[in-house]
Amino acid sequence: MIKNSKKAVILLSGGLDSATACALAKANGFEIYAISFDYGQRHKMELTLAAEQAKLQNIKEHKIIKIDLRIFGASALTSEIDVPKNRDEHKMQSEIPITYVPARNTIFLSYALAYAEVLSAFDIFIGVNAVDYSGYPDCRPEYIKAFEVMANLATKTGVEGKKLTIHTPLIDLTKAAIIKKGTELGVDYSKTTSCYDPSINGLACGVCDSCNLRLKGFSDAGLKDKIIYYKLPHEK
Amino acid sequence: MIKNSKKAVILLSGGLDSATACALAKANGFEIYAISFDYGQRHKMELTLAAEQAKLQNIKEHKIIKIDLRIFGASALTSEIDVPKNRDEHKMQSEIPITYVPARNTIFLSYALAYAEVLSAFDIFIGVNAVDYSGYPDCRPEYIKAFEVMANLATKTGVEGKKLTIHTPLIDLTKAAIIKKGTELGVDYSKTTSCYDPSINGLACGVCDSCNLRLKGFSDAGLKDKIIYYKLPHEK
Repeated sequence: MIKNSKKAVILLSGGLDSATACALAKANGFEIYAISFDYGQRHKMELTLAAEQAKLQNIKEHKIIKIDLRIFGASALTSEIDVPKNRDEHKMQSEIPITYVPARNTIFLSYALAYAEVLSAFDIFIGVNAVDYSGYPDCRPEYIKAFEVMANLATKTGVEGKKLTIHTPLIDLTKAAIIKKGTELGVDYSKTTSCYDPSINGLACGVCDSCNLRLKGFSDAGLKDKIIYYKLPHEK
Repeated sequence: MIKNSKKAVILLSGGLDSATACALAKANGFEIYAISFDYGQRHKMELTLAAEQAKLQNIKEHKIIKIDLRIFGASALTSEIDVPKNRDEHKMQSEIPITYVPARNTIFLSYALAYAEVLSAFDIFIGVNAVDYSGYPDCRPEYIKAFEVMANLATKTGVEGKKLTIHTPLIDLTKAAIIKKGTELGVDYSKTTSCYDPSINGLACGVCDSCNLRLKGFSDAGLKDKIIYYKLPHEK
């Protein structure tokens, strides 16, 4: 493992992707400062698991920022609109889903940028993925690149000639490849969640887009997903 | 006056610039949705005056979003660092001041972007100014342009081929020109604040960078600033 003790800010969601991105950043010798958001999401379990990952991966600092996206309404992740179930793969790839939260990654990355600037960190990690991105515009590589350009103009860092980098180590990986990579690095995926519509006690549904992608990923990787589902696809 | 009833989101701060930008957007026929931020700033007077401007200018909707930047520390506007006084003009133009809040405009514009997307608005107004910008990196035209590029990749709007525009009607104007323009449009500047270090009862100091710029602007415009200062420059 390379040790360079450079600081990196990482967006930690409690999900599988960001847990893997965190492990990859650590493996590259970064000292990790994680940031998570309490944005009125329906499933608080995400934040509990983000904190657990932060502990498991022995990161330097973990901040949970309370922000209120609910005033913006219009997303199944934060309001009372039903989460879509059992959409076919083509539909998942081509449509912007109702679970899209307006400008979410932009708001999250903006906070990460502020955090990085205060820490004098020049590296931000985000676990976005363009392969299985389910139609979210703010998970595309061209979006991330544009954010990086903007970030370097927004801050003292840029003005002083230092370069801030937005790292997307998962951007080209399939879910299976992500899971394989994380497993090699010792990520405990039983302490992650992916479900858009978990039960009251935090169990994953197994039938929303996100559960479908996760289950397919484990299956393709030839690995067992150790989380418990309250309703698996074959029961639909 | 052109009437096109298009919606626009505007960042309203309680200051002179955003009040003018708002009047300009209205004069161009936009229906105004304003957004202000309660970010732990030392002077709550800003928010009171933003609400008052919203009312005076008869805008459609005004949202005050509570966000916590204090956890990021490191700025005289949100922590206990002293606000610099009586800096000369050269110093104001060339240095990034301690009153700079990390990534502030990026965070504010990100919320504006979310708000615009929910409203199906394609226009955002921000009263930044590159002439008197006092060394803030996130007030420069190249920063705003980069944010616009990013915003069009971040959202459904961009994906669907519609173009979101970040308007900066004050970007090339001197403070005097802004004040003249706003006065023509009927802006009541007695209901704005610019001071970085107001008294407990909300009076402006008259000696911080922002008061200096404002006073010089009114003086150059040949107009009288009707707000009350508790300590004018000649008394320093």
